[in-house]
Amino acid sequence: MPQVEVCFAPEAYFLYQKKFDFEIVVVIDVLRATTTMITGLAHGVKSFIPVASLDDAFQYQILGYEVAAERNGQKISDFPLGNSPLDYLQAFQGKEIVLTTTNGTTAIDVAQKDNKKVFLGALVNLRALSEVLITQNKNVLLLCSGWKNKFNMEDTVCAGGILESLLNAGFFFTEDSSLASKYLFDSAKTNYKKIFRDSSHRKRLQNLGLEKDIRFCLTLNRYSMVPVLDHGKIVPFSYHV
Amino acid sequence: MPQVEVCFAPEAYFLYQKKFDFEIVVVIDVLRATTTMITGLAHGVKSFIPVASLDDAFQYQILGYEVAAERNGQKISDFPLGNSPLDYLQAFQGKEIVLTTTNGTTAIDVAQKDNKKVFLGALVNLRALSEVLITQNKNVLLLCSGWKNKFNMEDTVCAGGILESLLNAGFFFTEDSSLASKYLFDSAKTNYKKIFRDSSHRKRLQNLGLEKDIRFCLTLNRYSMVPVLDHGKIVPFSYHV
Repeated sequence: MPQVEVCFAPEAYFLYQKKFDFEIVVVIDVLRATTTMITGLAHGVKSFIPVASLDDAFQYQILGYEVAAERNGQKISDFPLGNSPLDYLQAFQGKEIVLTTTNGTTAIDVAQKDNKKVFLGALVNLRALSEVLITQNKNVLLLCSGWKNKFNMEDTVCAGGILESLLNAGFFFTEDSSLASKYLFDSAKTNYKKIFRDSSHRKRLQNLGLEKDIRFCLTLNRYSMVPVLDHGKIVPFSYHV
Repeated sequence: MPQVEVCFAPEAYFLYQKKFDFEIVVVIDVLRATTTMITGLAHGVKSFIPVASLDDAFQYQILGYEVAAERNGQKISDFPLGNSPLDYLQAFQGKEIVLTTTNGTTAIDVAQKDNKKVFLGALVNLRALSEVLITQNKNVLLLCSGWKNKFNMEDTVCAGGILESLLNAGFFFTEDSSLASKYLFDSAKTNYKKIFRDSSHRKRLQNLGLEKDIRFCLTLNRYSMVPVLDHGKIVPFSYHV
């Protein structure tokens, strides 16, 4: 049966890379990059082009692309768009959007450079994503974007939820980080509001007045959209691809 | 009030170093380095000299020191002693012992190079250590030794237990890693055997036939000994120092 492990932050990626052979990486950035891309695609955005640096984002803007940029929870004022899922509910149907964020696009970059098949996960597509992963039936690394390479709670709880679904389908794990994410997901099941109320990035966004975004991002299974990276672009996954 | 945070592995130390100003580092390596040193000192060992590399350990051996060395859970055969707490229950009273281990002495090395006051923690001295930290009333980083720079369960649960005592005394935290360790300690309280039964290093030691060591190391509050690093040597902490 396939193996599934949880990595708490991009910086630790290479430690897992050394330890087991995975074909699939799921990048998780609940607050907010992966939630935003799932939401955009579910509402008709054609694709997102994730870029790690603001320099790359500027280059795309010069070429005429629509560019969304965020650092430390705030929109960068030189670009027209930010990293709120609520911005993508209707206005960008059929559009291609370049996106750079504090943590999420860095995590995508790490997996992309390692030539892995990359899916995007968040609480809003937890069930749909888990079903796709079970069907793929391959070793999976669940890569939390974290906060500036540190552990964060919401990504880990989300990873724990995906892990639980995969364990139920017969996957196995060996790492203590995976075991911990499973226990944290269990704690979240009984303390869903509390565990997130105390999380540091939630407080950070709350201080920026982004309470609506937080509620949106923490809602389980809002979408059946599963984004996948295809030749540098994030597009809806299809079983025919 | 003082701040307390939990760092999951030595590699992440510098991320916490950048974020807050702590005077004290508690190094935790439940399986087994810090448990072994607490045990040795409690049974009359005069001091342990922690060294990070086998090369340094060889140098000490040439100088005539008693040297204990372990890598990947096993004693290194070129040295007379290993990393089992059970080896230090009576035989080395008044002796000075040089110790190098896979993870624990690396973590001590990181904190020592950063000129912090270093205490050693484990499940066997959780309560006594917490009392000392509360009396010190200074910012504390709880540094888990982890497993080869990855998260491990037993060190994190131990950190969560110390954190809980310090929170009850009025300390505060801001990091999600601290929040997670608190939840994992809560899970351990109700699932103490299960959470450790599934941990990876426990399985590793079990496969090496070290079941007795494991039971010893996982017993809470066996000792009131609190070791501290003093001029490169681990000695019993005393309020008069």
